[in-house]
Formats: sequence, C-alpha cells, structure tokens
Amino acid sequence: MTSPNNRPLGVAAIGYAFMGRAHSNAWRSVANHFDVPAYEQKVLVGRDAQAVAAAAAKYGWSESATDWREVIARDDIDIVDICAPGWLHAEIATAALAAGKHVLVEKPLANTMDESAAMVTAAQSARELGVRSMVGFNYRRIPALALARKLIADGGLGTIRQVRASYLQDWLSDPEAPMTWRLRKETAGSGALGDIASHAVDQVQHLLGDTVTAVSGKLHTFTSQRPGPEGPEPVTVDDAAWATLEMAGGAVASVDVSRVALGQKNALRVEVYGTDGALTFNLENPNELFYLNGTEPIEVQGFRRILVTEPEHPYLSGWWPQGHVIGWEHSFTHQIRDFLLNIADGTDPSPSFEEGLGVQQVLAAIEESSAAGGATIKLAEPANANSTPLHTS
Amino acid sequence: MTSPNNRPLGVAAIGYAFMGRAHSNAWRSVANHFDVPAYEQKVLVGRDAQAVAAAAAKYGWSESATDWREVIARDDIDIVDICAPGWLHAEIATAALAAGKHVLVEKPLANTMDESAAMVTAAQSARELGVRSMVGFNYRRIPALALARKLIADGGLGTIRQVRASYLQDWLSDPEAPMTWRLRKETAGSGALGDIASHAVDQVQHLLGDTVTAVSGKLHTFTSQRPGPEGPEPVTVDDAAWATLEMAGGAVASVDVSRVALGQKNALRVEVYGTDGALTFNLENPNELFYLNGTEPIEVQGFRRILVTEPEHPYLSGWWPQGHVIGWEHSFTHQIRDFLLNIADGTDPSPSFEEGLGVQQVLAAIEESSAAGGATIKLAEPANANSTPLHTS
Amino acid sequence: MTSPNNRPLGVAAIGYAFMGRAHSNAWRSVANHFDVPAYEQKVLVGRDAQAVAAAAAKYGWSESATDWREVIARDDIDIVDICAPGWLHAEIATAALAAGKHVLVEKPLANTMDESAAMVTAAQSARELGVRSMVGFNYRRIPALALARKLIADGGLGTIRQVRASYLQDWLSDPEAPMTWRLRKETAGSGALGDIASHAVDQVQHLLGDTVTAVSGKLHTFTSQRPGPEGPEPVTVDDAAWATLEMAGGAVASVDVSRVALGQKNALRVEVYGTDGALTFNLENPNELFYLNGTEPIEVQGFRRILVTEPEHPYLSGWWPQGHVIGWEHSFTHQIRDFLLNIADGTDPSPSFEEGLGVQQVLAAIEESSAAGGATIKLAEPANANSTPLHTS
Amino acid sequence: MTSPNNRPLGVAAIGYAFMGRAHSNAWRSVANHFDVPAYEQKVLVGRDAQAVAAAAAKYGWSESATDWREVIARDDIDIVDICAPGWLHAEIATAALAAGKHVLVEKPLANTMDESAAMVTAAQSARELGVRSMVGFNYRRIPALALARKLIADGGLGTIRQVRASYLQDWLSDPEAPMTWRLRKETAGSGALGDIASHAVDQVQHLLGDTVTAVSGKLHTFTSQRPGPEGPEPVTVDDAAWATLEMAGGAVASVDVSRVALGQKNALRVEVYGTDGALTFNLENPNELFYLNGTEPIEVQGFRRILVTEPEHPYLSGWWPQGHVIGWEHSFTHQIRDFLLNIADGTDPSPSFEEGLGVQQVLAAIEESSAAGGATIKLAEPANANSTPLHTS
Repeated sequence: MTSPNNRPLGVAAIGYAFMGRAHSNAWRSVANHFDVPAYEQKVLVGRDAQAVAAAAAKYGWSESATDWREVIARDDIDIVDICAPGWLHAEIATAALAAGKHVLVEKPLANTMDESAAMVTAAQSARELGVRSMVGFNYRRIPALALARKLIADGGLGTIRQVRASYLQDWLSDPEAPMTWRLRKETAGSGALGDIASHAVDQVQHLLGDTVTAVSGKLHTFTSQRPGPEGPEPVTVDDAAWATLEMAGGAVASVDVSRVALGQKNALRVEVYGTDGALTFNLENPNELFYLNGTEPIEVQGFRRILVTEPEHPYLSGWWPQGHVIGWEHSFTHQIRDFLLNIADGTDPSPSFEEGLGVQQVLAAIEESSAAGGATIKLAEPANANSTPLHTS
Repeated sequence: MTSPNNRPLGVAAIGYAFMGRAHSNAWRSVANHFDVPAYEQKVLVGRDAQAVAAAAAKYGWSESATDWREVIARDDIDIVDICAPGWLHAEIATAALAAGKHVLVEKPLANTMDESAAMVTAAQSARELGVRSMVGFNYRRIPALALARKLIADGGLGTIRQVRASYLQDWLSDPEAPMTWRLRKETAGSGALGDIASHAVDQVQHLLGDTVTAVSGKLHTFTSQRPGPEGPEPVTVDDAAWATLEMAGGAVASVDVSRVALGQKNALRVEVYGTDGALTFNLENPNELFYLNGTEPIEVQGFRRILVTEPEHPYLSGWWPQGHVIGWEHSFTHQIRDFLLNIADGTDPSPSFEEGLGVQQVLAAIEESSAAGGATIKLAEPANANSTPLHTS
Repeated sequence: MTSPNNRPLGVAAIGYAFMGRAHSNAWRSVANHFDVPAYEQKVLVGRDAQAVAAAAAKYGWSESATDWREVIARDDIDIVDICAPGWLHAEIATAALAAGKHVLVEKPLANTMDESAAMVTAAQSARELGVRSMVGFNYRRIPALALARKLIADGGLGTIRQVRASYLQDWLSDPEAPMTWRLRKETAGSGALGDIASHAVDQVQHLLGDTVTAVSGKLHTFTSQRPGPEGPEPVTVDDAAWATLEMAGGAVASVDVSRVALGQKNALRVEVYGTDGALTFNLENPNELFYLNGTEPIEVQGFRRILVTEPEHPYLSGWWPQGHVIGWEHSFTHQIRDFLLNIADGTDPSPSFEEGLGVQQVLAAIEESSAAGGATIKLAEPANANSTPLHTS
Repeated sequence: MTSPNNRPLGVAAIGYAFMGRAHSNAWRSVANHFDVPAYEQKVLVGRDAQAVAAAAAKYGWSESATDWREVIARDDIDIVDICAPGWLHAEIATAALAAGKHVLVEKPLANTMDESAAMVTAAQSARELGVRSMVGFNYRRIPALALARKLIADGGLGTIRQVRASYLQDWLSDPEAPMTWRLRKETAGSGALGDIASHAVDQVQHLLGDTVTAVSGKLHTFTSQRPGPEGPEPVTVDDAAWATLEMAGGAVASVDVSRVALGQKNALRVEVYGTDGALTFNLENPNELFYLNGTEPIEVQGFRRILVTEPEHPYLSGWWPQGHVIGWEHSFTHQIRDFLLNIADGTDPSPSFEEGLGVQQVLAAIEESSAAGGATIKLAEPANANSTPLHTS
C-alpha cells in the first residue's frame, strides 16, 4: 500500500536509545526479508540535535529533527513510531492519532492508568477514521512464541490449567550499580513490574487467548538506595515481583520477575501445561520451543526441542534455510512487517491499545495487592483479551 | 556402635508401601557403600500378615509382624523406622521414643500441628536420655543439594536474595485418575502442599540456613471430583500451590508445586540467587548442580554443570568412579548412614523433629493465607532453623 | 529356579575391585526389585585373604576364599561371576564351564583373540549340556538403551544410515597421573580401545542388530611415558582411538574414544540416524533418551527427551514411580536379573561369548588398521550379530 | 576510509542466491551497528536481468547488472564481493584483483586445486599493490567462536590434544529429494566435504592456530541416485565424510559431516580438549560457548554455558544489551565490518586466500585418502596457518 497520495508511506520515529535503535534496525531490515508496502525512513526525532543527526545517519533515516510536534504535522509523514520514554507516550500518541497518523508505540502503553485510558480513547476515535494503532509487545512475534500460540489455539494442549511465566535479568545484581531514571517511580512508573512483568503478563493473556480476572502479588526492592549523581538516592521502584493470576477460563498463572537474578541475562521463560500437552520456552534460546504431546504413547512421550527455523514456521519463510537461527531483534522486524500489512489491508493491528491497557490493569492490580499484603484484587472489568490472529504465514 | 548389650543395632521398619520399599532398600544397601555401625534388619511391620511377610522376605528383613506395639516393646529392637501413613506418625513415634528407641520418621512430620507439637515434645524428652530422632527430608542428602548447601554456607554465593523452588509432577494430570486416600483431607492432611511443597520449603530453609517469617499463598484444585469406588467423590485437597516466603535474613523465596504439570515427572527445581553467585538444580537430573561464580571475569561467567560424582563431593567417596551416576534412592541410603553415625556418635540428627515442625508451620501458614485470599501471614515464632551440619565427608 | 538339588543357586564371584564391587552390589540388590530364582551369595574370591574377607563381609557374601579352582569345584556353587582382570578370563571361564558352572564374565571377553576363541569353544560345548554363559556388556541393560534398541527394532527409525558413538573420559588427562597395569599392553591388552571402545562397538552392533564388515582406525597415545614406581615408564597402550565401521546392512558408524577428554567424565554418547527417525543418548544422563520421529509434521518435529522412568519402559516396572531416576549401577542389576532368568528358563543369555568375540574381532581390526596407517581392514567372517531379544518386560 | 578519490567505497556483489542474500543483508546492516568506512551498495550482478533487478531493489543495491566484467571495470567500484557458485570464483576473483578491486569471495575458495592456486598467486600480486583479498569462512566471526579462539590463544586450555568437529544437516535425508547442481561433481566439486567439512576444517586450523600435516578419510554416498529432470540421475558427490587430522602441534582432530543426519538442522559442533581446559560449541545455539576450566578445584569444575552477549565479548559492543541474542546472519555482518576495517587500515584480511587454499589442500587429501581405502595422506607442504588476529574488539 502507498499513502493516500500514492507515494511510499512516510515514517517518523521518535527516540534513538535502546528501543529506538531496535526499531530503526527493524525499519532498515524488514523489506529485505518480507514483501511489505513501500515506505521510507523519513525522520528520526530526538532532543539533542547533534546526537539525533548522528543516529539518523547511522540507522538509515533521511533526516533528523528535534520537535516531534512539527514532525507529526508534516504531510509526508504517515506513520509515527514512538520509542520515547513511557511518560511521553500518551502525549505523543494522542497527538499523532489526532493528526491522522498510524501509531506504533513501545510497551508499556503508558506509565499511568489515566494516560493509558486516554490513549485507548484516542485510538478508538482514530480507528473509525481508518487510522491504525499498535502497542509493541514484540515478543508475540518471536517465531517460537507465535508457534506456541498457534499450537494452543489449535487445541494441541487441550484445556490449559497452569502457566508459569518468569522474566529474570541481573543488571541490578550489583548493589553499587548507579541510580538511573528507571529506578525512580516518577519517571519509570514501576520497576521490573512495568518493564518485564508486562511482557510476561501479555504472553499469558495472548498465548491463552484469555484474560486475567483476579490477582495476588508482591513487589520487593532488594537494594533500597543506590549511588546517585549527588550521593545515595532512594530506589523507589521494585527490583522483583511475584504474582498469581486467575484467568477467566479457569487456568491459574504465576508470574515472577527480577532484575537481580544473577546469571540470568534475559530469561523470559514460559511454561504452559494443559490436559493434553505442554510447552516451554526461554528467550535466551529464542529459536527453540519445547513441546510435549500428552496424547502419544507414554513410552515415547517427552518434551521435544523444536528448532523453529523451518519455512513452515511463523515468519520463517522470509529468512534463511532451516537451522540458521535469527536473533532477538527480529521480533521487531516481524512487528513492523505486520503493522505495515495491517495498514495496507485496512485491518486493525494486534496488540491494540486496548490490549495494552489490559496489561496495565493487571500490573496495577498486582501493585495494589502488594500494598495490601497480598490480598486478592479482582479486576473490575475483564482486561481486554486479544483475539486478532497474527499475520504469521 | 553397637547396642548397650554390645550386639548389632536391631532395626524395625513400619510400612512397606512406596516409602517402606525405599527405606528397606537403603537399609539393605548402606553397609555395602559406607562404614556404619553394625545393625540388623530385624522386623518389617504391616497390617496384612501375608503381604508383610512377603515384603520382609523380598527386602531382606529377618521377620515380619503386624503389631507395631509389640515390636517397639522388644528388647532386641533399638531403632524404629516409621514409613506408615502420616496420620500414624505421632502415635507410633511418641510410643517408640517413650520406649527408648531411636526413631526415624518419614516426612511430613505429621498431618496436624498438634500431632507435630506432641512429637517435638516427645523428641525433646527422649533426647535428654540419649535417644535420637530424625525426620526424613531425604533430599538434603542428594549429593548435589548437599554440595549446594556447602557452597552457600561457605559464602560462595554472597548474600542470598532470591530462591525459586518448585516441585512439578503430573500424576494427577488425567482428570479421570481415580480417587485415593491422598486426595481426602482427613487422611492426607493436604495435597501437593504437604506432599511436595514440604520438600521445597525444607530446601529453602536448609540451603539458606534461615527461617521463614511470613508467607502469602494460594492453593487450587483443578479437578474437584474424581471417580471413587462408589461413584464420583469430591477431592478435598489441593492439586497445586503457590507461595512467597519472606526469610529472616532478608531473602524472598517463591515456592510453587503441582501434580498436574503434564510432562514434569519429578521436577523439584531449586534456583538460588545471591550477590556473588547462583545455583540451579533439578531432581530429574539429580547428579548435576549448576553453579555460577559471579566474581569471575564477565567474559567467562556462566552456569557450569557440575557432575556431582567426584570423590571430593558429598557422600561420593562411598560410590563409583567419577562420572558413574547414582539414583534417586540413595538419598535414603545417605540418610540412614548419617542416622546410624549420629547414634554411634551420640549426636543429634538433622533434620530434627523441631525442623520438621518448622516446615509444618510454614505449610499451615500458606494454607491460612490461601483461605484469607492471599493475605500475608506472619509466623508467630520463627520456624526452627537447621544449624546442624550434615555428615557429608 | 533352583539348582538340580532343589536348593537356591549358589553363586561365587571372583574379584572385588571396581567391577567386583559393582557385581556384588547387583547380586545384593536384584531380588529386592525383581522376581528372580532363589540364589545365595556364597563365596567371594580374591588373592589377598584378609582383604577379600573384609570385602565379602561388606558386600554380603557368606564366605571368602583365595583359590578360585577350589571354589569352582564345589558342589554348592552353580554360578561363577568372573570380575578378575582380563588376562585371567579365559583360564577361569573355561575351567568353570568345564565344571558345569554357569558363567558370567566381565567384558572384554579376553585380552587376546586366541583366548577369546577358546572361550567361545568352551561355551559352545557347555551350552549343549545346558550350561549358560554371558559376557558383561552391561550397558545393553541401561533402560534408555534397551528402549533405543526396541524403537529401532520396531522400525521407528526406518533404515539406519549413520551411527555416531563415542566414549569420552578424562581420568588420564593429567600427564603426571601415574603408571598402572591398565597402561601396559601385556596386562591390559589395549587402552581406551579395549576398555571403552568395546562398549561403543557392542552398542553399534546391538542397537542395529547388525555386524561390522570393514573398519578403518587410528590409535594414539598422547602421554607416552608416565611416572612408575621406579621412575618414568613407557605407556604401551592407546589413550584415544578413532574408527569408521561399515555395517553389513549398509550403515556407516563412527566410533571415537578417549581417556584425556578433559571435563567428560563418563560420556558414552550414541547417536543413530535413520530414514524415519533418530536417537541420541549420553551415559552421563542415563535415564534420558532423545528421540526424533521424522514422520511427524515438520512444524512439530524435534528431539524429545524421554525420561525413561515409566513402568512401561524396559526394566522400570521393578523400580520407583515415574520420574524417580535410577543409577549407573543398575545396568548390572538388570544383567544379573536376566542371567538368572535365562538359567531358570533354560535359554541362552545375550550377549553370548560369540558376541563378545565379535566385538574383539572389530577391536583387533581397528588396531590392525591403525598399524597400517588407516588402511581398510575387512573382517574375514562377519562378527557375530546379536539376535536374542533381551528380557526387558 | 574512502576510495582514492575521497568518496565512499563502491561495492559490487555478484550473486543473489542464498549466499548473495546473506552478504547483501550484511552490507545493508553493518553500518547500523559498527563504525566502518563509508561505502555504497552500488551494483548487484546476476545472469537474469529481471530477477537481479528485483533482488537489487529488495536488498538495497542502487543498480543491477548482468555482466560482471563490465562491473569490475567501473571506476566507481572498489570492492567486489563474489557470491557466485564455486566454479566461477577463480575467473572472477583473478580478474577483479587484476583490476585493482578488493575481493571478498565466498568459501570454498574454488572447486579445484589449480583454480585455488591461481587465486593465491593473483592475491599475492595484488597484495603488493595494496589490494586486499579475503575468503568467507564467516563462522570465525560468530562471537562465541571468536571467544573460543581467544581463550585458546590466551592459554586458557593449555596444550590442545584433541578436537572433535562435526557438521550435521539433514536436508538430503529424504531419498526422494531431487537432483541439484550441488550433487554433481562437475559443478559442486564435492558434496558435504567441500560445503560443510570446509567450515569444520577451517575451524580446527583457526581455533588452534595450527596446520594439518596428515589425514585419513572416508567419503560415502547413501543415496546413489536421485530424481532428475529427465529421470533418475546418479549422485556423484558424497553425502557424508569422516576424517582424522594430525596437527603440526601434536593434536589430533576428528571431523565428520553429513547431510542425512535426520533432525540435525545446522549442527556445526566443535569440542576442543586441552591439558588445562575444554570448550564445546554448537551452531544451532550460536550465542553459547561452553567452557571448562580444568585448573579450578575439582569440586566446582564443570562446563559453564557462557551466553556470549556481553559488551566484553567479541563484536558484541555493536549490538544489544546483555542477553539479547543475535542471529546466524551476523557472522557475515562481522566479516564485512572487518574487511572494511582492513581496507581502511591497509592491513591484510584473514582468512586470506592462502588460508582458503590450506583448507582445500586438507579436503583434497581427505578425498585422496578415501579413494585409497583410508590410507594416511601426508600434506606435501603444511597448509597455511592463520596467524592474523581478528578485529574483535
């Protein structure tokens, strides 16, 4: 698809830190591997003029800019990809949607429930005008996890009873690691909870196609102050979190996350147990899915390691021959591919802002439960389930 | 050591089901591999005269009997090994201790807190008279877990922050699996909680040498009725349980257990994360311990697989050359070896009945928290820490 | 079965070093777990009267003796289990068979081809009189390998094309490790070749039910002299060996073994690739078999880890509930169980002495090829295939 | 660096099949991640005008062309990247070098020894004029293998004794898979030997910094004819190969490769055993290196899994935060980065054409040995060792 004026879709990205780099890399790569509508990497936006100019040159953007408001007003911009920090999501996204731009926003949707709700409202209005919006839970497009979703949806696990999801990292293991904006509640919203439990909660809901109805949770900060620019400063977000989630369909999920699990580098692990089968996954080996078919003769049952690199696997027809693995970064490549196809097709992307809000509601309930000593918090209205299938073929 | 009369220690075992078989096997094997005081497998006790006679013959006991009271009154019996179901533990153990017999009792200590407390009282009185008592948390004597305890105690992990302990099985995965005494609260006390979470909780306390001070927990039964002898019957115990445990030393542990985790056969997994190192273990590969030394250069850091079969490893000097692995059952062999050595040395075995009671207190608090919707339950007085080192050399 | 005189079978074992301990342990355990004919551990034989008496007491033998000739002449001895060093196998085995005793002999069958041939002749004569003989390739009775054999025999792998078998250890990795009888050709026959390649070659032939027809091989000694009691002494056997084996059925197998593969403790690894499936195994995790079913949809194909602990698995009905693993030593327990059943049934045990000779022929050909710089050596007459199914139910 | 005319280096690539795609992807990505001299993706060359034009557009080349001779004559082309089939390597490379263009050529260097030798001569002449040449053994730049090389070079393994290298695939497992040019000797030169054993041999020589002095080998074709366009056609190359390699420094390496190892998708596995340490690697998990430090206390020795994603690891400073793995394709990205840096620095790339020839000599000797029934073939003059360190920082 092209823009209304029959030219390639013009793309602007806002932010060039870690996520900005990852998104830029995906914009640079996606057409190499997939048939997508024509698009152009027009502008990269950031606050520091010199730094953003250098980043734009490096990551393949034609121009750079420092004022995102000017950029979203441009006629040659059709898509706005928001990689700025969470506290800016709502303001930029609502403005861009109001300007008729398709919006992709990094997760989490926003830092507060109010902001998240406002974004959903904006997305709903825009949707009626054919303007698309998507929140970047990129791990849905890891081929192995997309295959997991497919196996579950196809009934290969029977009725799901239990999910065990955890996300363990160790970059805060050193108690002398310095203070950053990620460790202040006013800038980060929360700690491990919003940053990585959000992925785990999204996976639980997405894999099962189900929603959380009640939670019990606990947050904990192991290192309560860290060296700041002007001496010791209190850490006001969690280092680790634990929760149990009751699902509408009767399953129970546990989620636990940590930034101090020494030796675990990026271990998003998911285990799903059903009446007829089971699955396990670890993001440190993202090309592998382990699957047990419980309906086979017991003599030969076992978790099989599927190397998810066959052309028959989700997204893999765009890549290399079997056995040639792809990296973490291509979850973003697949996300952008699908977003572009949604725009071309005139269909709504998934995860929608409503799904992003649904995750935020669960996280907020975990925080509330923790403050109440673990008491069960019921979700007032079910968090939004995700029912739109991915473009995985 | 011999008995007061200078003859080999006379042993009686009560029970010949799964645990009775496992203990009998250990009594039959221990002297083959370790230097222990002389003992004789005198009597195996059970309710069915014919069946217990057959079992006694098969497992190497000289005689069989049906009345445990008569057996514990015999002068030629010095040790009573209780493998009967949990609801019989208190009655037999207190009688045997009162009769001056050394007592080994399978875990859990008892089905109720009152019974457990009575057993502790009996053990304390007997201890003053030189009569020994021990509760059978046999996994402490898996060499890999004994090594884990040693590495932690030696400071190899620094300060412990997090423990993740889970015990997953799948023998109740089939919703048509029939009703048994293990699924009725009146006979079993609890379900997965007492049966397998007890092991997990004991490991958490034992590995860290620390005690639980507060818990939040949840129990769940996925299959609420099962086919009984006279039609469908309600299941009155839990299929799965989840908990977070606050430790006196500041660490946080999570415990989750299940009997419906399809494909997981006997997966007691333990992960311990400290400031300087980390450990992981899985009972399905009991001869392996994974250890990360976080003080090494980052370039070569990683979890190493230690095949715990070297003569330098706990209990291994009694076994085969390096690389020749031993089975699950020898956790019992090592338990009996140490129990015999304690008797000979005149020292108190570990885990003591007090330690068994400490585990029961934690389990009771988890149950109480679950009934209260996850609310945090503080333990009135700290559960008893385990400080006695194992005989592992 | 009982002996002709209707009493339990009387057993004598010769040797109490590593293999003697392992066999004794199996004799001590087998009736605990399996229904076998009645037998008695009568005599343990060794050269040092005091040491053998201590060993006999420890390992459950009623008596000890120093003269094996006297022992095999006793009327109350029905079975002779030969765990003495290889250079004594032929003399003892032929004498025992001539005396009408059933004989189990540790592998390798003998140190020389002439001795091996003489033993086969003796076994054939004895067989006509109902006297049984067996050579101890115990790994055939590791449940996972017995299952592998079954899956292959049942056609689950289609036509086998390739086998990769290796056996890696590291106990000679240290160049200062001292000289032993195992490193002198006159006492050991060969090094890694006879000791561990013999297991690998036996597995190749047994798993495939096929025989080697031609070999190319290479032996190498990395440390050519080692500290002996009187100063440096030349090592006259191989530290490592490599070979390719052509099978009668068209498959090609590779075998490589080493005693200096640092970090590999007891890694007998076997990989079998067929047209329809594949298998892998590692003796360091002996309860696991990895199996790929190549006829399934490619989307879900992968090597599955079968935890070989279900009652449906070979030998497992005698053991613990699922997921409770057994140790290396029980390959011997199963071997003795089957040997006893063969005696009771009046059937011939497998592996027979002919099968042991077949392995020796392959090893001799590898040695000959190595001496000839790798030239292909055809086996004059096919090494004996093994066609007798195991008692695995 | 810029070209002599102070403009970005102009790049032409020849070929757009699998390897052309992989190289194009690397040219498209490298500047996103690394600081490299300015360059432009000028021309993609192929035989089919329409197809190559489409490929050029897709992979980011400014133009396409069908006549490589015209392209290498252009003044605006400084670098020629040859991804054409092996039988064209010599002609194109020698012409490009004669025209003063820097040349990167995919492995293997050429299909015949004569062609390879001619290429070396051309490279040597060009080198004197400052024209650079490199052969594409891309796996040297997998970070985990670059780390392996570094650990060995730094002495972390002591003296190397044994290497076990294998490369297993299964894309010819199906006997009905059709005939292709890769299965005809006249077009492919050889089968698995040249295609994948070349990688294994290069790794053996590169990791050890050593050269092969003698080989014994065996080639085998399991499926001797396959469906061709005009009926069954004979397969004239090997499906699998096995070899032992003697190294100048005293180590012994084994190499075995297969295209019919069902279930193995792209399993280049390398194991290196030294006197003080050991390493293992598998290309199916390319971000992991397993390392054992044999000088640590035996109690804690074991193979550690290093997740090679830290900024301290080779090439990783250009990528994502720790734990975020990269894909197979970036071995090419790193290769082009280093090639560009060599051009800028005026240093010679590694692997040189001489190193490529060295690998070809080993492969030819394996083929010769196989034809001679496994007889040892000594290499007339040592294959060229690789001593140039990689740019890995």
